[in-house]
Amino acid sequence: MLAEIITIGDEILIGQIVDTNSAWMGRQLNLAGIAVKQITSVSDDAAHISEALAAAQKRAQVILITGGLGPTKDDITKFTLAAYFKMGMRRDAETLAHVESFFKRSNRPMLETNIRQADVPDGCTVIQNRNGTAPCMWFEQGGSIVVSMPGVPFEMMYLMDEEIIPRLKQRFALPAIHHRTILTSGLGESFLAAQIADLEDALPSHIKLAYLPKLGQVRLRLSARGEDEAALAAETDLHAQAMMSRLAGHVVIDRDIPLEKALIDQLKERNLTVSTAESCTGGYIAHLITQHPGCSAVFKGGVVSYAAELKQSVLGVSAETLARFGEVSEETAREMASGAVQHFHTDFAVAVTGIAGPDGAVPGKPVGTVWIAVASPNGCVARLHQFNSKRVQNIERSAAAALTMLLNELRSAQN
Amino acid sequence: MLAEIITIGDEILIGQIVDTNSAWMGRQLNLAGIAVKQITSVSDDAAHISEALAAAQKRAQVILITGGLGPTKDDITKFTLAAYFKMGMRRDAETLAHVESFFKRSNRPMLETNIRQADVPDGCTVIQNRNGTAPCMWFEQGGSIVVSMPGVPFEMMYLMDEEIIPRLKQRFALPAIHHRTILTSGLGESFLAAQIADLEDALPSHIKLAYLPKLGQVRLRLSARGEDEAALAAETDLHAQAMMSRLAGHVVIDRDIPLEKALIDQLKERNLTVSTAESCTGGYIAHLITQHPGCSAVFKGGVVSYAAELKQSVLGVSAETLARFGEVSEETAREMASGAVQHFHTDFAVAVTGIAGPDGAVPGKPVGTVWIAVASPNGCVARLHQFNSKRVQNIERSAAAALTMLLNELRSAQN
Repeated sequence: MLAEIITIGDEILIGQIVDTNSAWMGRQLNLAGIAVKQITSVSDDAAHISEALAAAQKRAQVILITGGLGPTKDDITKFTLAAYFKMGMRRDAETLAHVESFFKRSNRPMLETNIRQADVPDGCTVIQNRNGTAPCMWFEQGGSIVVSMPGVPFEMMYLMDEEIIPRLKQRFALPAIHHRTILTSGLGESFLAAQIADLEDALPSHIKLAYLPKLGQVRLRLSARGEDEAALAAETDLHAQAMMSRLAGHVVIDRDIPLEKALIDQLKERNLTVSTAESCTGGYIAHLITQHPGCSAVFKGGVVSYAAELKQSVLGVSAETLARFGEVSEETAREMASGAVQHFHTDFAVAVTGIAGPDGAVPGKPVGTVWIAVASPNGCVARLHQFNSKRVQNIERSAAAALTMLLNELRSAQN
Repeated sequence: MLAEIITIGDEILIGQIVDTNSAWMGRQLNLAGIAVKQITSVSDDAAHISEALAAAQKRAQVILITGGLGPTKDDITKFTLAAYFKMGMRRDAETLAHVESFFKRSNRPMLETNIRQADVPDGCTVIQNRNGTAPCMWFEQGGSIVVSMPGVPFEMMYLMDEEIIPRLKQRFALPAIHHRTILTSGLGESFLAAQIADLEDALPSHIKLAYLPKLGQVRLRLSARGEDEAALAAETDLHAQAMMSRLAGHVVIDRDIPLEKALIDQLKERNLTVSTAESCTGGYIAHLITQHPGCSAVFKGGVVSYAAELKQSVLGVSAETLARFGEVSEETAREMASGAVQHFHTDFAVAVTGIAGPDGAVPGKPVGTVWIAVASPNGCVARLHQFNSKRVQNIERSAAAALTMLLNELRSAQN
């Protein structure tokens, strides 16, 4: 069964916001066995919305629309859908009661525009939006389903999880789709492909392999499609195992989870703790870790020692080291990592010091020079990286390299 | 002049990656006076790519395609485009030399698949990709332009900035587009709309107003389209000024820059410094600040005091305060902020302590309870926020509220 996603809003087309909704929806639909054929972003324009919807209905059976349901004048989705499906508008009593209680609960007065949020096309099924005032609307036409949801991410997510996907599952006999992802580091895309060429050629036609390079690492994704989820998982696992043993030493994680989530899981399993000492990554590693619920069991905290004085006062890096080798040096990285382990009382610590750019280069240390050190019960290791000239990319690649190094040291510490 | 963006890759449709390229491209095109009509994401499938391209060519004159140019089997874009434009393939000597030197420089051996990156449709103009091995290809057909670029963000960005946009500007007489954004906080979307209803009604038809709610704040965006950039800017400014004086007290920034960039700029202007003491935001505020080049002039660093012991050891929060009021309390937030100012020697510091969830709630302090304190030369202020039950959203809203509070205190300190 195919679905399409249409996101409505000029703010996406002019690049004011990044459309993160579609990726999330694509993932949830895939897990439910629904393949997304196309994602289309269109402007707040009735003719354009109608055109995109008509085209999508030719390709897919289920069309999920987000956006354009707010209370203001640029929000035209529901009127456009009413016209598209040749329906009038009616005021929905249940929605009105919900909107009223929503405003009452949050202790805010209600305006005429808020009342109009209860107006819906006469002929759609209204699904209440527990997290906001714009209702979700479900249209059916022949065998085709069109659902309009608010674009506010957490409102959409709740509706998808609790209402839309369960209804679609009930309605259609969905095929099984199974993805398996292997994260590798240290080998380029072409070299990976060359190393596993025979394994790739041996894949059955219902299993596809994709190479996804990102931040100096490459993800291998096997996607299988069939009828029996368990059988697909077992079959995919065989191919994944073959690839992993061929690539042993380059495999960082054998599942599609972020590096920092793998780190948290592995630390938790072994009752170990970690801290961070970040200079050029500026708190990004700590942020990645603390996005995840339950991280407090393994992460005590860290320091963002952007200025040299914090490297001394909080981490205990010696003034002599800073003066002799500089802030961006193996010696400073090592003292930062050791200092974090000592002062924050953790089993592991990672330290990153480098020149993210565009300023800060010194002779012999161009922008992109980054030292990463990991202190562990086994001692301290450090490694030099030479990334490129882009600040944001240097931060992201440094964080990925730091987390990979932590995972590798954690594995060594185990052996 | 209208453009469309087509992104190719199953990884977008299955939600494995978020399409950040399109937003960036949309923004750059808009600044150049090119409106994006539609963004379409399609799978690695020749028929689907061709269908999307044909549809886009009916709506827009310039089609920018990203993705599917890697060296592996799932990368089919250039072969699809060759078939679409009825061209054969040829090996491009300049590209081959570039690929060879690229591998030589990075000291890696070259494979047959890398050599094939120099194969291009016979009849397109090849634009060299300085940051990678997949060339950019420019096709013309009648008055229609189709450009294929790699999907790796920094490769695409360089090509857009240095090659594609300059060529489009040279080729077309582009209209002027001007956006003006005002960031407000403290008023919901409907209330803002009610307060400026008459001003919105008075807008001429070539200036559109949009309300963009995000993280408890609302951005007002005025978009003007015409012929003369300077005249549009002046005209838009008049309307923006009227709205800002109507909304005075709720306006946080009068330009479309991130909160933390406004903070950096204002601190730099006044030669002041800031530090951070983050508990539930886990380094996110420091990360936001350190994304920006030049932040080291104002940001000395901070601590991620996830564990209580770091609040004591690094920030000097008293054991008594922690025991008596708890980690999530006004008193702890105040001592964290004051501790940061003292220990990190900065003029300002912001401290955040709260319960991001899903765990950690205690009686009287549900998930989403967040205390934020700002220490400044004027003393210390603290404020309680009650956000919701979603961890990532609580972190983002806390950071937005903390930065807004810093900006407000900075303004007070000035007066």
